[in-house]
Amino acid sequence: MKIEYQSIGIVHSPFKEGDKIPFQPSLGKGVSGSVEVFPNFAEGLDDLDGFSHIILLCHFHKSSGHRMKIIPRVDTQLRGLFATRSPNRPNPIGLSVVRLLAVHENELSIMDLDILDGTPVLDIKPYYPELEAGTEVHTGWLERKG
Amino acid sequence: MKIEYQSIGIVHSPFKEGDKIPFQPSLGKGVSGSVEVFPNFAEGLDDLDGFSHIILLCHFHKSSGHRMKIIPRVDTQLRGLFATRSPNRPNPIGLSVVRLLAVHENELSIMDLDILDGTPVLDIKPYYPELEAGTEVHTGWLERKG
Repeated sequence: MKIEYQSIGIVHSPFKEGDKIPFQPSLGKGVSGSVEVFPNFAEGLDDLDGFSHIILLCHFHKSSGHRMKIIPRVDTQLRGLFATRSPNRPNPIGLSVVRLLAVHENELSIMDLDILDGTPVLDIKPYYPELEAGTEVHTGWLERKG
Repeated sequence: MKIEYQSIGIVHSPFKEGDKIPFQPSLGKGVSGSVEVFPNFAEGLDDLDGFSHIILLCHFHKSSGHRMKIIPRVDTQLRGLFATRSPNRPNPIGLSVVRLLAVHENELSIMDLDILDGTPVLDIKPYYPELEAGTEVHTGWLERKG
């Protein structure tokens, strides 16, 4: 089954090269940038300004192929690809939760981003906590990294 | 820019029709199903079993066009599409956080799902809390619903 998507906008960010991207989202804290949404989609941004955070789904346009087992940057041993956030995936979709500072027409000012400059945006979703407060969460091999 | 993806698997769920899908994720609680990952991607599931929750990115294959302003099912007034989780989006990608019960070869047993039976899966990511504990979160128009 072939699935065809289009870019709805583009990320402007201070990260011009992939190897400068923080490999833990928390290291992107304080980094500011913007999302330029193409004008024909701008109306869909209404009501977004009440949200403190948004989810950006992006197309990792610099991704080049993938292997099903990789050594994550924060680790020293092979891990299953789907147990990692590597950009080199069968469908190279990135997920970032960023802080939304302001909406001006078709431009979103955002903060705490870990996204390469020029990255095509596929979707924008309002962020809300996905799990009920107090849900017990285990994070596998990542737990032992800290 | 055209972006082409492929299905890496399929969701098996008790929801056979779209209008039976809970419109709040919390209403999917206790619902169990599975993800059948196609065999050539199965190796990528290694190490996933240590995670209590996973993120499923799915292709809303029943989505039919979109408008930039819609009335969400939980609301009575028009909202910008990107301030909603409507399945009818320019790129109909769904995001679900589900509980991972077990991994058997290329099959994931999952719980708390709100996904239509037969939905193609685009990506599987390990879940971890995206925001630091204590981050103040505002959820705009949704806040006045709950």
